[in-house]
Amino acid sequence: MEKITALVLATAVVIAWIAPPARGEVRSFQWKVEYIYWAPDCVETVVIGINGQYPGPTIRATAGDTIRVELENGMSTEGLAIHWHGIRQIGTPFYDGVPFASQCPINPGETFTYEFVVDRPGTYFYHGHYGLQRSAGLYGSLIVDPVPSDAVPFTYDGELSIVLNDWWHRSIYSQETGLSQLGSAFRFVGEPQSLLIEGRGRYNCSLIPAAPSSPPLSGDVMSCNSSRPQCAMHALAVRPGLTYRLRIASVASLSSLNFLLEGHNMTLVEADGHYVTPVEISNLDIYSGETYSVLVTANQDPSRSYWAAVNVRGRRPATPTGLAILSYGDGSSSSAPPSTPSPQSPAWDDFAYSVAQARRVVSRPGFQIPLPERANVRLMLLSTQNRIDGKIKWAINNVSYVPRATPVIAAFQFNLTTAYDLAASPPRDFSRGYKIRNAPPNPSAIQGSGVYTFRHNDVVDVVLQNSNTLVPNNSEIHPWHLHGHDFWVLGYGSGIYRPHRHASTLNFVNPPMRNTVAVFPYGWTYLRFRADNPGVWAFHCHIESHFHMGMGVMFAEGVDRLPRIPAQALGCGYTKALFTAP
Amino acid sequence: MEKITALVLATAVVIAWIAPPARGEVRSFQWKVEYIYWAPDCVETVVIGINGQYPGPTIRATAGDTIRVELENGMSTEGLAIHWHGIRQIGTPFYDGVPFASQCPINPGETFTYEFVVDRPGTYFYHGHYGLQRSAGLYGSLIVDPVPSDAVPFTYDGELSIVLNDWWHRSIYSQETGLSQLGSAFRFVGEPQSLLIEGRGRYNCSLIPAAPSSPPLSGDVMSCNSSRPQCAMHALAVRPGLTYRLRIASVASLSSLNFLLEGHNMTLVEADGHYVTPVEISNLDIYSGETYSVLVTANQDPSRSYWAAVNVRGRRPATPTGLAILSYGDGSSSSAPPSTPSPQSPAWDDFAYSVAQARRVVSRPGFQIPLPERANVRLMLLSTQNRIDGKIKWAINNVSYVPRATPVIAAFQFNLTTAYDLAASPPRDFSRGYKIRNAPPNPSAIQGSGVYTFRHNDVVDVVLQNSNTLVPNNSEIHPWHLHGHDFWVLGYGSGIYRPHRHASTLNFVNPPMRNTVAVFPYGWTYLRFRADNPGVWAFHCHIESHFHMGMGVMFAEGVDRLPRIPAQALGCGYTKALFTAP
Repeated sequence: MEKITALVLATAVVIAWIAPPARGEVRSFQWKVEYIYWAPDCVETVVIGINGQYPGPTIRATAGDTIRVELENGMSTEGLAIHWHGIRQIGTPFYDGVPFASQCPINPGETFTYEFVVDRPGTYFYHGHYGLQRSAGLYGSLIVDPVPSDAVPFTYDGELSIVLNDWWHRSIYSQETGLSQLGSAFRFVGEPQSLLIEGRGRYNCSLIPAAPSSPPLSGDVMSCNSSRPQCAMHALAVRPGLTYRLRIASVASLSSLNFLLEGHNMTLVEADGHYVTPVEISNLDIYSGETYSVLVTANQDPSRSYWAAVNVRGRRPATPTGLAILSYGDGSSSSAPPSTPSPQSPAWDDFAYSVAQARRVVSRPGFQIPLPERANVRLMLLSTQNRIDGKIKWAINNVSYVPRATPVIAAFQFNLTTAYDLAASPPRDFSRGYKIRNAPPNPSAIQGSGVYTFRHNDVVDVVLQNSNTLVPNNSEIHPWHLHGHDFWVLGYGSGIYRPHRHASTLNFVNPPMRNTVAVFPYGWTYLRFRADNPGVWAFHCHIESHFHMGMGVMFAEGVDRLPRIPAQALGCGYTKALFTAP
Repeated sequence: MEKITALVLATAVVIAWIAPPARGEVRSFQWKVEYIYWAPDCVETVVIGINGQYPGPTIRATAGDTIRVELENGMSTEGLAIHWHGIRQIGTPFYDGVPFASQCPINPGETFTYEFVVDRPGTYFYHGHYGLQRSAGLYGSLIVDPVPSDAVPFTYDGELSIVLNDWWHRSIYSQETGLSQLGSAFRFVGEPQSLLIEGRGRYNCSLIPAAPSSPPLSGDVMSCNSSRPQCAMHALAVRPGLTYRLRIASVASLSSLNFLLEGHNMTLVEADGHYVTPVEISNLDIYSGETYSVLVTANQDPSRSYWAAVNVRGRRPATPTGLAILSYGDGSSSSAPPSTPSPQSPAWDDFAYSVAQARRVVSRPGFQIPLPERANVRLMLLSTQNRIDGKIKWAINNVSYVPRATPVIAAFQFNLTTAYDLAASPPRDFSRGYKIRNAPPNPSAIQGSGVYTFRHNDVVDVVLQNSNTLVPNNSEIHPWHLHGHDFWVLGYGSGIYRPHRHASTLNFVNPPMRNTVAVFPYGWTYLRFRADNPGVWAFHCHIESHFHMGMGVMFAEGVDRLPRIPAQALGCGYTKALFTAP
């Protein structure tokens, strides 16, 4: 394997930031999305596959390349859209893959062509962004290599890549239905049955009830067979003495995860496509929507193998450790599972540990994108859990997001003012004096659109403010993901954010850039971004059920400069009424 | 609201046949379709409900009324369309509810307004016509009463109505996936777990495996509880000595059914909205898509109750009898389940019995719609089961129907010639010399559109020709349903239809009019209709899995006279490309 040599160019970083030209190759893919039978954790059920496989195929490209995916919806009745997580879609906001934000869903039988530039190297992924389709298995890796002349501030001998997720045996239809029930009939999705590494886990088949007569008597669970190749443990094969770049992404639907390699330390070097100042860690907290690269040196006894493990953090775990095998060499002896117990992560509720690790992630000198000195817009986004019309919903500034039938981007481009109550947007900040711990029930929340509008090049500060759930003395971690942008993470704190108290604690020196950031229980997270990418961008909690329950907003920016939406992205809601026969 | 004043012009009568004026009331409904938890046979899982209930609400109207249903799609990711089974949609072919034939599917979040005239009294129903959504519970009754001045050729004291269906515990996604598997991985939906009368059955909960730990461990089956009110047996309450009109519809997904009332004979008086010459029967064969009215006199011992029962016929049964209670009076003693064994239907494979009963259904003197003397178009539609690209499919004249992304009706109206290979339509008749019993594997079948075009007022004869399945010595019953029309059933026969041998056996005297008719194993069925309703009309096997596997064609007729398709029915496939911004 070749060593990758670092060459540092002084100005390249700043130029690449704005709107890189497509100087690379066009990489074309033809994908058919359809349901397949699969047994990710040895329990066979239906998952959404791409070209007959789960997880979906890996896209690998070089910065500046154009990715062209002809996506055929082969499902029977479900719409479809795929989000390219971490790709900013500069100039192509209609290919961001969020139904009713950036496009109409792709109907069954249609082929939709996504075509966009991957402007910046890094570790990314893609996933279904419609309903809970990501939870049904619709995701895969997207890795962008730097052009050979680009600087990479570390060296390694080889590369490995894994995607982590959590897995349920209940279908997404049943999960969604439970989330929509009135009052006490509400059924949360619950803790996952399994944690998967690269789409593989191992459920204890003895927990699957045996059907006394022929199947299918237990719903969609067809069988459980721990010797199926589909659920054979993923193996990370290394050679003694070499150093590997391990790319790790989390597409988890619910769980905050902690990843560790038995007997091996890791050096954190990349987060969400940005190089960070190297940090030595023995385990990695990773939230849904985040990606990291860590360097690992195969410096342990090569005659045995080691566990790669993932555990739940942030929620009381009810799911066994997810496992893969780190094996030395190609010998069969070292690829056998280790005989050691699976490694333990920090206590699930040691939030101080998580906050401390998050704070250690800072940008790498020489690779910092200059932070705009001050913001001209500041948003306080207070998230609360409420009952609205008898249903449990998440709300941001008292508005629980529900998708409308017309894509927000089309509403702006075609001035479909009746599609959205844009006059009521943005929702009002009501955080002043709000009691984030065990506040009394809040009857003011409504279901709505939650559209915030910015002028082109506005610099926007956002305070994400956490609070209590409807359960007394309970507050949860929420990983927030912004589409179309990276943002600088200026700080984390606990309690309610108060400028006079907390502004001085923010990090203006080396804030990391991310596309996803955690807000910790009862805490706040402060971030900044520049609204330099005309489009409509979702900003939401990346927990599948939370966004489904309304935990998100829409950022519409530079709407006077929107590029023309292609016809293939239209055809739903009010855009039908624009229909004119030839 | 303004009153609309009727002005009758001399030519109105002729026009009325084409598009009868709405002389009655407008009956408006607001429906929201969404997944709900329900336990039709005591096993709780997700079903598609309307306004929170399963089955959907009954529509009751008077001939000449306009039905107006504002249908909101409240599902997360699935499209939607509802077919009004038996309603001819004269003048409103775009409201026939067949995705990619008469309209684009309704997207989640959209509200689509169906508005059509119910021109003729009778027993009808409605159901989802997208994917297998009917199997997921999306259906309900639609009953049209005659105007008071209209003749009804029988009298009765009261009315009862039931819809029959078969029920699975596997989700429709898992069912669909199984039907699409390659080669030996193909998994048929299998025999149903339960038969339901008016949406209620009773599964033996002891057959549901108990989960050794907390749910949900068995897929989407949430619980089984035989004391749930949702699965309490349906009761047909009668009063001693009175005569009832019992309306019976079958929306079964797979099963041919036989209905009987313990201790009571029935007099068949209506089939698919047409009065028939009364026939005394002790049990009723009913195929999916058919409706009947029978008269029943409550002339038995009123101190006890009686079983209403439904059994599987035509396939080797693996499903218990579906049961309801016929109870006399309001006394609690007589509404208890009978202590007698559940009644037996004729042997499942006594096809001669079924054919004989089908032949006894003839039109009622005085209510016959004159049969056109001769047809100017004759179609032989040979159905075969084939392997196409490794998948098991049904084909008609070697074309296995697959929906395209553009509604056929829009392809004709907007001349979207690239949407369909219309040049290849209609598929060629290859029945001459074809061996319908155990023919060698047929490699010629393809997947396609199967569009047959007729001129306005063509009189079309269709021979539906059955054959062997891929299983040696096996041929199945197929109930064929024609949209937009009723047809005269001129005869049934066995073997391959030969004009010189069989034409003389056809019934030109009192053929019944139907919208659905069975083709028996290794048999043929001969029917005639007049192509007097400009539109695009599906003609297909009403078995949910069979149509999904391609067993259908499209009849496009009078396409030069299509009424203008409303924008709400467009927006998918090639109709997006017609999009023009204002």
